[in-house]
Amino acid sequence: MKPLEVIVLGGGFAGLSCAKALTDPRFHVTLVDRWNHHLFQPLLYQVASAGLSTTEIAQPLRAILSEHKNVTTLMDQVTRIDLEAKQVHMKEHVLPYDYLVIALGAKTGFFGHNEWEPYTIGLKSLDDAMRIRREVLLAFEKAESANTPAETEKLLTMVVVGGGPTGVEMAGSLVELARVVLKHDFRRIDPTQAHVHLIEAGPKLLPMFPGDLPDYTATRLTSMGVQVHLNCPVKEVGPGFVVAGDQRIQANIIIWAAGVEASEVTRTLAGIPLDRGGRIQVKPDLSLPGYPEVFAAGDLVSLTDKNGVRVPGVSPAAIQMGQHIAKNIQEYPLGQIRPDYAYWDKGSMATIGRKAAVASFAGMQVKGFLAWLMWLFVHLIFLVGMKNRASVFIHWTWSYFTWKRGARIILGKSED
Amino acid sequence: MKPLEVIVLGGGFAGLSCAKALTDPRFHVTLVDRWNHHLFQPLLYQVASAGLSTTEIAQPLRAILSEHKNVTTLMDQVTRIDLEAKQVHMKEHVLPYDYLVIALGAKTGFFGHNEWEPYTIGLKSLDDAMRIRREVLLAFEKAESANTPAETEKLLTMVVVGGGPTGVEMAGSLVELARVVLKHDFRRIDPTQAHVHLIEAGPKLLPMFPGDLPDYTATRLTSMGVQVHLNCPVKEVGPGFVVAGDQRIQANIIIWAAGVEASEVTRTLAGIPLDRGGRIQVKPDLSLPGYPEVFAAGDLVSLTDKNGVRVPGVSPAAIQMGQHIAKNIQEYPLGQIRPDYAYWDKGSMATIGRKAAVASFAGMQVKGFLAWLMWLFVHLIFLVGMKNRASVFIHWTWSYFTWKRGARIILGKSED
Repeated sequence: MKPLEVIVLGGGFAGLSCAKALTDPRFHVTLVDRWNHHLFQPLLYQVASAGLSTTEIAQPLRAILSEHKNVTTLMDQVTRIDLEAKQVHMKEHVLPYDYLVIALGAKTGFFGHNEWEPYTIGLKSLDDAMRIRREVLLAFEKAESANTPAETEKLLTMVVVGGGPTGVEMAGSLVELARVVLKHDFRRIDPTQAHVHLIEAGPKLLPMFPGDLPDYTATRLTSMGVQVHLNCPVKEVGPGFVVAGDQRIQANIIIWAAGVEASEVTRTLAGIPLDRGGRIQVKPDLSLPGYPEVFAAGDLVSLTDKNGVRVPGVSPAAIQMGQHIAKNIQEYPLGQIRPDYAYWDKGSMATIGRKAAVASFAGMQVKGFLAWLMWLFVHLIFLVGMKNRASVFIHWTWSYFTWKRGARIILGKSED
Repeated sequence: MKPLEVIVLGGGFAGLSCAKALTDPRFHVTLVDRWNHHLFQPLLYQVASAGLSTTEIAQPLRAILSEHKNVTTLMDQVTRIDLEAKQVHMKEHVLPYDYLVIALGAKTGFFGHNEWEPYTIGLKSLDDAMRIRREVLLAFEKAESANTPAETEKLLTMVVVGGGPTGVEMAGSLVELARVVLKHDFRRIDPTQAHVHLIEAGPKLLPMFPGDLPDYTATRLTSMGVQVHLNCPVKEVGPGFVVAGDQRIQANIIIWAAGVEASEVTRTLAGIPLDRGGRIQVKPDLSLPGYPEVFAAGDLVSLTDKNGVRVPGVSPAAIQMGQHIAKNIQEYPLGQIRPDYAYWDKGSMATIGRKAAVASFAGMQVKGFLAWLMWLFVHLIFLVGMKNRASVFIHWTWSYFTWKRGARIILGKSED
């Protein structure tokens, strides 16, 4: 019997965990991604701040799935989904499916202000991270030969918008780059004079963390040298400036970590309810209303699970959803009642800097050095692939004792 | 007393070794490079063939020179040198000097056929290597969804022009990528059917190696699957094809490793004798005729040394020249007679593939596995910086036992 065709769109945490779990040979799986790699997004800020190289947080999807003989990997970009004809349209292909899993993730969102995008850099792909790395390192190079103090100051001012984990980690890691890593490497400028601003619209950083962890984070970042602005919604972004609250900040680099919205492909799903961020309002079993053969997982899903818990856009949720869908496809033929998904909250953690992190799990709150060690351990365990783990471990150990960063390389045309 | 200003142009092997050796505080050194990093060029082909990541073979010049307090690093691109006014003109700066060291290296050369350049990729910078990596990996991705066998065949045909060490290493490493690394990762195509051609104008590969090493290299490459073409001068290169000897090869990727010529800046040196490749014909003490305060070192130098040995364009010669110049500047005031440079030939080596290399030193010839172990050892020792050494060692050990390559990541716009 010809196997049923399952198309999985997206090789992120949700899509990859689904494809890996679809081991039943009655199904043939095609995993589609616009890139050839799975990206370990939680460490993207480390690439942006020159701590890790691109290849340490990415692995080729083909290599990961090499032993999964019923899985084909296809590098292509999805343009629209035709739910009636059961077809996926891509730039280079049109493919029919029996089952479809939509796991295309999220992209940087500007809350309706897409005109700000050209002046900012997001942090969703390796290319974003490489661009930040390049711009930040170039800023110091240019400052070294700037002619006036005002010029130097503007070149060395960086703004991070968004006080969630990505913004906190990015700001902490940028200030450490300037204050410690680069400290002795310049002759005319003092890199420790660089300004890193972290701007948050709401009253606290890391609002999803309980107890005093948000306050601790703000205090710690401030003592490291980050200028933390709370209750400062961004009102305008233009070439080289941000207006936030009642302040106007001249900045060379503006990193946007304030919001995400679902991949624009969700807009092509005729008749499917979406939330404001374009997220698909799936049924509790993760299928699309009216289309039991179509599922969605990961950051483009909007769901309150069967226990009444709002499922957050984090990697553990994405992995769980992918696996839940694989189980529903393999074990429950169409028409049968399938189990609903329940989010299992394993806790959350975020690093602030070297030796400082916050973690919350099972009702406990941990902060400081212990939380940082936990963060290190968990991220090493989760990094896909043996070699990356060893290589990242060496980088981190080396960085820890030497305060050096191994990826301070500017790529791309030097002066154009 | 104000220190004398020494400008060193170029942070390659010659310029960096010179700047590092200029430790006398009577001199202030400005090291200029268009990139922010020193590149370990002998391993560039490993980045191109997805074995190593960019950051493993490059290190920030500033970080290398962090402890050299009399050295300033400047990222800028040299446009011309005014020997009479003793000034270096760059895109962003004009700097006066007391001493000048020109070590700008070489670029890919086309023997007067610059019209071939758009159809080929050179292998001189990290960007070149990243471009090759991207094109090669994309070729396999596209082939996986090609519609006809002819299309697949063309996509999977790669040509390397030039049978010197770079060409040999590149061809060997590409064929291993196709035949071993990618073997199990595709479902529709058979990556082992990829064609790798190595084209050499002369009668043998690695002509600088003695005895039967050139023949051994050709035999070994052939047994690995490379199609070796000797006595095949390239007559034409166009979009997707090469005409070499009396053959026309349709190829998706054409890598040019056939020749180098000196940086074009040498053409701005009024009145200084150059050879056909633009190389500066220096005096035996490495200074420019008529300008005892100006020196040149590395790949842009044309010299037969005091023992009658033609100095080759290899990294040991560049390092020796850089150090010799630093000594001449520091120990011999202008006007004194300075010692001439003598090339110390430490031998040569080239890898062919896993477990196979050739080496020649002190009148001995070594080939096969032993030569490969020697190659590995020497390259690890020479890699600049502790961390890179450990990281590359891990990558290599891991690759050796698993036959995987860690850097198979396609960067850049996915489908544009």
